[in-house]
Amino acid sequence: MTDRPRTVALLGGGVIGGGWAARFALNGVDVRLYDPAPEAERLVDEVLSNARRALRRLTLAPLPAEGAVTLAAAVEEAVDGVDFVQESAPEREGLKRDLLAAASRAAPRDAVIATSTSGLLPTRLQADMAHPERFTVGHPFNPVYLLPLVELCGGELTAGETLERAAAVYRSVGMRPLTLRREIDAFVADRLLEALWREALWLVAEDIATVEEVDDAIRFGAGLRWACMGPFLTYRIAGGTAGMKHFMAQFGPTLKLPWTKLMDVPELTRELLDTIVAQSEAQADGRDVRELERLRDDCLVSMIQGLRTHDYAAGAVLGDYERSLFAAAPATRDGPDEAPLRLYATVVAPEWIDYNGHAHESRYLQVFGDTTDALLRHIGVDLDAGSSYFTVESHLSHLGQARAGDRLRTTTQVLGHDAKRLHVFHSLYRTDDDALIATAEQMLLHVDTTTDRASAADPALLERIERIARAHADLPRPERAGRAIGIPQ
Amino acid sequence: MTDRPRTVALLGGGVIGGGWAARFALNGVDVRLYDPAPEAERLVDEVLSNARRALRRLTLAPLPAEGAVTLAAAVEEAVDGVDFVQESAPEREGLKRDLLAAASRAAPRDAVIATSTSGLLPTRLQADMAHPERFTVGHPFNPVYLLPLVELCGGELTAGETLERAAAVYRSVGMRPLTLRREIDAFVADRLLEALWREALWLVAEDIATVEEVDDAIRFGAGLRWACMGPFLTYRIAGGTAGMKHFMAQFGPTLKLPWTKLMDVPELTRELLDTIVAQSEAQADGRDVRELERLRDDCLVSMIQGLRTHDYAAGAVLGDYERSLFAAAPATRDGPDEAPLRLYATVVAPEWIDYNGHAHESRYLQVFGDTTDALLRHIGVDLDAGSSYFTVESHLSHLGQARAGDRLRTTTQVLGHDAKRLHVFHSLYRTDDDALIATAEQMLLHVDTTTDRASAADPALLERIERIARAHADLPRPERAGRAIGIPQ
Repeated sequence: MTDRPRTVALLGGGVIGGGWAARFALNGVDVRLYDPAPEAERLVDEVLSNARRALRRLTLAPLPAEGAVTLAAAVEEAVDGVDFVQESAPEREGLKRDLLAAASRAAPRDAVIATSTSGLLPTRLQADMAHPERFTVGHPFNPVYLLPLVELCGGELTAGETLERAAAVYRSVGMRPLTLRREIDAFVADRLLEALWREALWLVAEDIATVEEVDDAIRFGAGLRWACMGPFLTYRIAGGTAGMKHFMAQFGPTLKLPWTKLMDVPELTRELLDTIVAQSEAQADGRDVRELERLRDDCLVSMIQGLRTHDYAAGAVLGDYERSLFAAAPATRDGPDEAPLRLYATVVAPEWIDYNGHAHESRYLQVFGDTTDALLRHIGVDLDAGSSYFTVESHLSHLGQARAGDRLRTTTQVLGHDAKRLHVFHSLYRTDDDALIATAEQMLLHVDTTTDRASAADPALLERIERIARAHADLPRPERAGRAIGIPQ
Repeated sequence: MTDRPRTVALLGGGVIGGGWAARFALNGVDVRLYDPAPEAERLVDEVLSNARRALRRLTLAPLPAEGAVTLAAAVEEAVDGVDFVQESAPEREGLKRDLLAAASRAAPRDAVIATSTSGLLPTRLQADMAHPERFTVGHPFNPVYLLPLVELCGGELTAGETLERAAAVYRSVGMRPLTLRREIDAFVADRLLEALWREALWLVAEDIATVEEVDDAIRFGAGLRWACMGPFLTYRIAGGTAGMKHFMAQFGPTLKLPWTKLMDVPELTRELLDTIVAQSEAQADGRDVRELERLRDDCLVSMIQGLRTHDYAAGAVLGDYERSLFAAAPATRDGPDEAPLRLYATVVAPEWIDYNGHAHESRYLQVFGDTTDALLRHIGVDLDAGSSYFTVESHLSHLGQARAGDRLRTTTQVLGHDAKRLHVFHSLYRTDDDALIATAEQMLLHVDTTTDRASAADPALLERIERIARAHADLPRPERAGRAIGIPQ
């Protein structure tokens, strides 16, 4: 990766400067940091330790050896001989101008110099610099070590080549540069953020909502859409098959309603509408609305599932919902016990298919796992009471292949049990021709989920299992039960 | 779930009405839909089929049997005898008032009547209704069958009990009600959305950015934060250990800058600042900034990984970044055969986690299957030449639990082979503490994929396997190999 600099200078080490230190150092770049604040070193260490933890979770890809972070006593010392300078001082124009001017005089002639400003104009910031053509805005988003976006914006004296070189540097450390075509206060991202933020402040100031209610109004709804698609593509999809034109026709009139404090709205001229529709066509890039809907849904599902693992935001809602579904699932425990039990049926979903054209082996175990879940509900396992059975062993045999759209059903035979163990044998049939596709012999262990330790099931549960075992006592033992795997000699 | 209605009436079947039909029907509620548009039935069918697909991916929890969706020829027929009415007509006050008035006269006296309006005032919408006290706004977000948020807002005549009953109904179908304390145009969520949207329109109107650039400025940055935390909690964290007070002190002055078209900003009085700081304290609920940072980072990582599975948005950036890291990493492919082989490593993805909080049993087999795939690549199986190995038996033993974000690695030992069979033993370790989490003994059968029949592997492949088997000949036989499942007597 030749675009990755060997050494960068960072001017300012707060939340943003510390984030840059982490982004660069964890990507193998040596960092020289200048920050006169006494707590700068501790703060950067804290950000680095958060960033290491996050990056270790984010990717298994082979990262280069971590770069060194050293503190410099002066701007001149920080920028001496470096390839790239990133300034992240507080948002005061005078302060930034002075820093950038000093850096520009001491840094190598060809070092790119970037500023993290959220919205000050680059033309003004570069005014006192030596060689101002190698200056650009490189506006990141907190946490800098995780969020990919960096906005690039040149001033009047900035060379086009500078923007390209800066974009390559940011890309080399895993970021997504967005290069603006025109200079404007707050650039693009922060204009959007500020608009929302100012409206949010009004809502709190007028006691319409608390800060938590404002946050909830975003994170349980539109925030999820914005994380995968921005507002325009989202609205294109909302327009249905008629697309952006339809959406604008439907919601154009609401622009005149007092739906925010911002009543100075652009006139929806025919020309503006044509521009939006044409740009939206280009963005969709030939994908029709059904395709975009599926993409949106897939992304939303994956994000919500991601949040569920932390039991947070929309993921916490999903967790509560699932718990309520399990609690409400019909108890079939009072009917007669079939021999074998017939507890589960499903259809092979398209996403189960692997490169061989039939269901991936793990999907058979998924179906058997769902069958075991149905068995646990059948015998009355009460998750809320801290009782469950965990699978400790499974022996799968594949006898046929399932393809997308096949309807499947399972049967379950209890082979044995004691106070802690439940030994079962599932068979998986294709419903339409009753072909035996696979079998699974499983050993389940009763677990106290409050301690995650094996424990004896309570007497009511054992009595229930005993009743099923009696009903299954006369079934022939499945041919494939109790076998070991091996090549016959 | 006693709060779940048996039957709901939906008035209007567009994108939002269709989404409600899916949300209710897939949660076991019968739906009666009134929509005079000729294409209403087709549209609802399309939304339902998207929703079924999404929900099947979202959760493995036992959903109730799907409710029936029937079309009604008139409002009166739709609402006859139902428990709950949801109106989703276009955003025209007169149209909605007429519909709601007609519904209120024909629906049962105690049926809750809700409107999906994005911002029209409930006091005005309920003006012509019979028994207007059972009316509320229930504003959802597209796609209604996936996004949890629904905003509740009563008008002057709405009874408090109505808001509670509506919230319970929405909760029963997996949603997250947010009940507003005060009535305002566009409520809370759409005021925030509109503020951002109006600013976005300005940016396009003035050719600062295209619609795609606006979307990118959101989805690669702040959008990801908004999906887990709203703006206030995000900024509290950005304030560092000094929290919200520090953030407001630092960024308060930028409110005066021309960073959006909305220059009518609330005065940051001491009183407003105190309110924000106090509400932010309450929201943080005792969690310090480091804890919140880790929570934010964990959520961001899981969401980005979720997006990576669809190679989209920030997930596509991560994918490109990882490919560049792999391309830059030193090659180790042609080395000697390790004993055992180390062929595969991965990270537990959020969607692998089941209701017990650890990876679903089928995901362990997925990892072992991926390991087998890596082995097949390692020995040179050529899928294009019609040669493959299929798994015929697997014996899994679970010795520990993997949680989201855990890094995993596998080892592979060849236990035996003949011309058609390959007998292997995989072990799965958690990378960070080297704990053995699971093992899989597998029998693979060589298959001619042009006929799907067992066949002898070609000599080059057998020679390669023979070489590995020799390298593994002195490894001790794994303790768990060759075992059958059963309860010891």
